[in-house]
Amino acid sequence: MLTPLPFSLAAAVNCLRFSRSPQSTPTAPAQPSPRLASPRLSLSGGRMAEAVENGAACGGGVPRPTNPMVTPLLTDLYQFTMAYAYWKAGKHLDRAVFDLYFRKNPFGGEFTIFGGLEECIRLIANFKLTEVEIRFLRSAMPTCEDDFFEYLSSIDCSDVEVYAIPEGSVVFPKVPLMRIEGPVAVIQLLETPFLSLVNYASLVTTNAARHRLVAGKSKNLLEFGLRRAQGPDGGISASRYCYMGGFDATSNVAAGRLFGIPIRGTHSHAFVSSFMGLDEIIDRALASSDGSNKCEDFVALVENWLARIKDASSLRDTFGETNLSELAAFTSYALAFPNSFLALVDTYDVMRSGVPNFCAVALALNDMGYKAAGIRLDSGDLAYLSIEARKFFHEIEEEFGFVGFGKMNITASNDLNEETIDALNKQGHEVDAFGIGTYLVTCYAQAALGCVFKLVEINKQPRIKLSEDVTKVYMPSLPQAEVPLPICEYETMMHQKD
Amino acid sequence: MLTPLPFSLAAAVNCLRFSRSPQSTPTAPAQPSPRLASPRLSLSGGRMAEAVENGAACGGGVPRPTNPMVTPLLTDLYQFTMAYAYWKAGKHLDRAVFDLYFRKNPFGGEFTIFGGLEECIRLIANFKLTEVEIRFLRSAMPTCEDDFFEYLSSIDCSDVEVYAIPEGSVVFPKVPLMRIEGPVAVIQLLETPFLSLVNYASLVTTNAARHRLVAGKSKNLLEFGLRRAQGPDGGISASRYCYMGGFDATSNVAAGRLFGIPIRGTHSHAFVSSFMGLDEIIDRALASSDGSNKCEDFVALVENWLARIKDASSLRDTFGETNLSELAAFTSYALAFPNSFLALVDTYDVMRSGVPNFCAVALALNDMGYKAAGIRLDSGDLAYLSIEARKFFHEIEEEFGFVGFGKMNITASNDLNEETIDALNKQGHEVDAFGIGTYLVTCYAQAALGCVFKLVEINKQPRIKLSEDVTKVYMPSLPQAEVPLPICEYETMMHQKD
Repeated sequence: MLTPLPFSLAAAVNCLRFSRSPQSTPTAPAQPSPRLASPRLSLSGGRMAEAVENGAACGGGVPRPTNPMVTPLLTDLYQFTMAYAYWKAGKHLDRAVFDLYFRKNPFGGEFTIFGGLEECIRLIANFKLTEVEIRFLRSAMPTCEDDFFEYLSSIDCSDVEVYAIPEGSVVFPKVPLMRIEGPVAVIQLLETPFLSLVNYASLVTTNAARHRLVAGKSKNLLEFGLRRAQGPDGGISASRYCYMGGFDATSNVAAGRLFGIPIRGTHSHAFVSSFMGLDEIIDRALASSDGSNKCEDFVALVENWLARIKDASSLRDTFGETNLSELAAFTSYALAFPNSFLALVDTYDVMRSGVPNFCAVALALNDMGYKAAGIRLDSGDLAYLSIEARKFFHEIEEEFGFVGFGKMNITASNDLNEETIDALNKQGHEVDAFGIGTYLVTCYAQAALGCVFKLVEINKQPRIKLSEDVTKVYMPSLPQAEVPLPICEYETMMHQKD
Repeated sequence: MLTPLPFSLAAAVNCLRFSRSPQSTPTAPAQPSPRLASPRLSLSGGRMAEAVENGAACGGGVPRPTNPMVTPLLTDLYQFTMAYAYWKAGKHLDRAVFDLYFRKNPFGGEFTIFGGLEECIRLIANFKLTEVEIRFLRSAMPTCEDDFFEYLSSIDCSDVEVYAIPEGSVVFPKVPLMRIEGPVAVIQLLETPFLSLVNYASLVTTNAARHRLVAGKSKNLLEFGLRRAQGPDGGISASRYCYMGGFDATSNVAAGRLFGIPIRGTHSHAFVSSFMGLDEIIDRALASSDGSNKCEDFVALVENWLARIKDASSLRDTFGETNLSELAAFTSYALAFPNSFLALVDTYDVMRSGVPNFCAVALALNDMGYKAAGIRLDSGDLAYLSIEARKFFHEIEEEFGFVGFGKMNITASNDLNEETIDALNKQGHEVDAFGIGTYLVTCYAQAALGCVFKLVEINKQPRIKLSEDVTKVYMPSLPQAEVPLPICEYETMMHQKD
């Protein structure tokens, strides 16, 4: 049975407790994680305040869509021309039922995760055409009668009923994710924005969950896609729905602020390249972690450690002179963030410069009571380099009796996707965290889900659209929609025809 | 030489006259179209009023980014952590030069079209962190010193210089589209939003231009992608940049309003399915086009024409009983839009119902002085069906002496892309207009362009980032950047190293 979604905020919050732990994918059932307890993408708490702060008026207590560009005009023109034709024929108030569903699981897979419902609810709860919008429609449809625009001005969604599977559920083809009932002219206007809000959201959530499945529970997954996403909203949506699909954090600051998603980031190659040498570092002092003492020349301490590493018997032959501008960049970054020093080590040469330089800084930080956070690899053979870096860390642990240094965190990035992570797993690697961008957020492997919105009933009469393509024909009441779904942690609901 | 882009509105308008006719693709140079004269995507005119109406404050006369979600926080966290590290090291004001470029033409092609520049200019012209944003950053970076946040509050882009190839130009790999100079900490903050604004814009403009090339100059190209785009902004950006890339119109009403793009749309399958029969049509009167007379029962006129078509000797055996609920839908739509009657003919059966029904309504409209606009095919074998429909139209022309009926417009949609249009061309078809959605706006064939933003100079010292991947190494001063570009209508500029 589909769950009815009334418009009151309290009820909306109840229906929208869709946050899922990364472990909650169908083949990896697990204990509920702490995340489940906090409905981070629900309408309560931080984002509610956010919406109000942004000046978003509320319809029945439900905030406006997150993206202010989501308005009643964000639809196809034919929804308005049809509304006029319905109105002219006196059919605009006919009670229609539409199903929103997709025809095939994406990425050649066996499941899909439903995303985007909350934004649909926000849209209908605040659905009202402004005077300016009506004026634009008048100019776009100059032959339509004045009374029609009066009617359009009066439209809201108070007479619309939405039944939906909870957001975050595992869903399957040809089973409706949403069933929308109401006056046919109004429901048609919702078709395009609903599809626009659900299609990509569900696709990228599914993609994220698939990445979680292939990476495994123990790895940290970081979404780094903002710069390659399909526009700014693509980036913000990707960050939001990848988190719902099981990612741990994003690099996207705006998404962090809007949705309370943990944000991560350290430095780029440009930061490393921007340094010329150690001379540039003017303020060289670093207080110890507990404040008990101060190192007046942290740069000298780093240089001293670099010399000791170079002289260590087991490491002596692995590298010669490291790049000192890189060392300057690392040291500067450590002075700024001694508690969370993570270095990008592939600007010059990973094993002959980046890793030894990182270790020198990490060891110097350790002297001052700080624990370095790790390295990031962004090019080259990630399996090989992670294994070599791990070996180097173990040598440091042994040479200098630094317990735990061998377990130093290694993050990998650089055009990763499901296949490359799978290949890394098969080769063997020492990566602890994956930073994934382009392939994740653009859903490179399949860039669209293809949800559709089909009329199934009007004035209690069932309707069906035949097609020259047999695969496109949708039978709303077929028994297939009532077969039990695989048991999984998600509160998956079946569609039952009344 | 790259063109400097100062911030004043007048200058911005000069620099942003990037509107191109559909014919202006590199292999199809042609006369400038009327469109070239009106810089429809520039900062002047309608959109300026629009921005003001939306409450968008202006920085130096330049409106805010079209999407209100484009703010200084729409960036990767590491841009802020680096800004802090630069600031701590006293390097934040170091004068840096970054190049924005891509490494490879998309879609296996030989060219790219640059899009997104205007939005970058809007961002920097209005770049200012709000108090609320600063507060969020403080909570996200709790170990950073207070004075740093003071510094962040003070940042704007008045000390940033942007040199850019004009938007809409044909561009090539490893030649900078934009060169950005300014204080290193500020320029870093711009990296992610600039890439987010340029990557997809350029990709989808290029995709649109490629569709124009394969479809040819004479076809109408309609962008129908909003429902399958990657989120609402993906949809709006797609409509905007597809128009720049040579499309004629969009279905997206919001994009029509924001950018003055022509909008198109008629009705969907659901409209057809929603009718039960001709009895439903209550108001059956239609005044003639010139107002000189009135048909009291237009439905009867349509039925009469359908009988005449059925009895016509050359058409007698092509169809039997047509679907009367479809006929009711077409008739209703024609009563609402007698001047622009375009029917979707594949809800039941194209040749045995949709096309004959359309012709009956079109002939009845003709009696009243109206000219029908055509049909749309959305499933099945588009080449075959368009040819069969064309034959039918020619038969109507001959049977009833209706001059020009054979030239009736045929629009095709249904998952079209470059390859399917090319295949249709090879098979032979009678399609006049293509409605293209999913494959166009998601850039299915290659979902990301992969623009990058690289440091090339700091304090007048050239910098280069080496990489384990040789193909990633970028030589800013290589002679390749100075080879003359192919002569084309676009005002393409070369990069010259000073």
